[in-house]
Amino acid sequence: MILLLGGSGYVGQAYQRLFQQLGIDFLNVKRSDANYTDLDTLRELLAQQKPTFLINAAGYTGKPNVDACEKYKTECLFGNAILPGIIQNACEEKNIPWGHVSSGCIFTGTRPDGQGFKEEDTPNFSFRTNNCSFYSGTKALGEEILTDATQLFIWRLRIPFNEVDSPRNYLSKLMRYDRLLEDSNSLSQLDEFVRATWECWKEKVPFGTYNVTNPGHITTREVVDLILKSGLTNKKFSFFESEEEFMRVAAKTPRSNCILDSSKLADAGIKMREVHEAIETSLREWKKES
Amino acid sequence: MILLLGGSGYVGQAYQRLFQQLGIDFLNVKRSDANYTDLDTLRELLAQQKPTFLINAAGYTGKPNVDACEKYKTECLFGNAILPGIIQNACEEKNIPWGHVSSGCIFTGTRPDGQGFKEEDTPNFSFRTNNCSFYSGTKALGEEILTDATQLFIWRLRIPFNEVDSPRNYLSKLMRYDRLLEDSNSLSQLDEFVRATWECWKEKVPFGTYNVTNPGHITTREVVDLILKSGLTNKKFSFFESEEEFMRVAAKTPRSNCILDSSKLADAGIKMREVHEAIETSLREWKKES
Repeated sequence: MILLLGGSGYVGQAYQRLFQQLGIDFLNVKRSDANYTDLDTLRELLAQQKPTFLINAAGYTGKPNVDACEKYKTECLFGNAILPGIIQNACEEKNIPWGHVSSGCIFTGTRPDGQGFKEEDTPNFSFRTNNCSFYSGTKALGEEILTDATQLFIWRLRIPFNEVDSPRNYLSKLMRYDRLLEDSNSLSQLDEFVRATWECWKEKVPFGTYNVTNPGHITTREVVDLILKSGLTNKKFSFFESEEEFMRVAAKTPRSNCILDSSKLADAGIKMREVHEAIETSLREWKKES
Repeated sequence: MILLLGGSGYVGQAYQRLFQQLGIDFLNVKRSDANYTDLDTLRELLAQQKPTFLINAAGYTGKPNVDACEKYKTECLFGNAILPGIIQNACEEKNIPWGHVSSGCIFTGTRPDGQGFKEEDTPNFSFRTNNCSFYSGTKALGEEILTDATQLFIWRLRIPFNEVDSPRNYLSKLMRYDRLLEDSNSLSQLDEFVRATWECWKEKVPFGTYNVTNPGHITTREVVDLILKSGLTNKKFSFFESEEEFMRVAAKTPRSNCILDSSKLADAGIKMREVHEAIETSLREWKKES
């Protein structure tokens, strides 16, 4: 049996859909039923349920966006750095392997050679590099806390999207925002992300950190062109002149824009579609949230 | 009534002694009685007890020293950064002023002009500057989380000592360690520290951050000379050749050695003895822990 934490969130719901589709026995733990952020409660839950694997899709992302994390620092730090540490303590005590949904937003830009960041690169958008949002700082600190963890997958998600309109969907956001910031990014198609991470466990891929993004990268303007081409909107998209203008006008805290190298995942035998193809498919199959 | 959190620790015990001496009505909350690290429990405690002031002397320092914090990162981050945030949430909700025992170890060295760090200086031994122990990182992050707090004193302690032999007393440590690291530091005589912080509240000093250290600074060799002069030991003290050797041979993580400027506290009318005088007095009145 699989124990799912954070199953009501945007990523967690995708896990629930996947497990239902695949007929996998899982338990979505609601905090109102068992407060799994408390070590003793989590220990008890693991002892009772005896899961073969645990997935942590819980975290604090801020609503409507990461700017909110600047205000709710305690909650953000707890959800993204302390909670993974608590889960590690409980899982290692009970010898339960697990996976943690982390984020690629602990990087900015590209490697000095212009390539995407690999799993062995040190985060360059973190408290340590002192250039990040509070959110990114806490996600990087969460990975740092898990440094010595055993039997653990760290799965890095980047700007999720799929074919279902939602306030959390990158494509929906682009269609709704007044003005956009031009930059180049790696992205994660949400349903491919959860499938790929599940396959890590099912296919007994070695434990460790994986960038779970669709191969390649794409600029905001390219995504906008694909949106316009799809006919979903004929909106006149407008762009900020620069990141400076974006920061001055629209944001409280810097955003991560970065390119990740996902070849480690591919080399382990787990494939995701190229990013442009994944976006085109989502736009073609676009539907309102049910 | 004063609510004291962390009253069983080295600093917390000094608060208990002070309050007993002064005949002040206080409640030392034990975590086994009420787990004040849980927001709801703390809220309830504040509603029941209706304290006029709260002191947080709880924190995670690592035993026998800060190296332990490198191993227990989750506990350390929780105790030093999350707990202050939880206390802030509860105190602000109930409109209760409070004081937080922070640490001067979020600095290293001196200001570029050779002077001690003032309260408005940004910590230079933190995650943000990426040169610190995990312990110092969490203490600095704790202060960062409290940035917008109102009705709050942040009191910075540095390497506590007094006349009572104890594994936590700086003078005891110097007498017990095999080899010492030569450096210049500001220090806090423990009983003067708790008295000075209590006076901040009693004398209605403006809320904010205060370096609560004995004026001046002292080198390790100067302290050793005072110890030898006191006749408490005739041990041949030995020093590491350099901080590099110390790090290579004796430590897992860097130590903060720094000079703080405590004139803000003095200007507010709260006096502490000059550091050499405070040490000489402690050595003269030296006694075994009762």
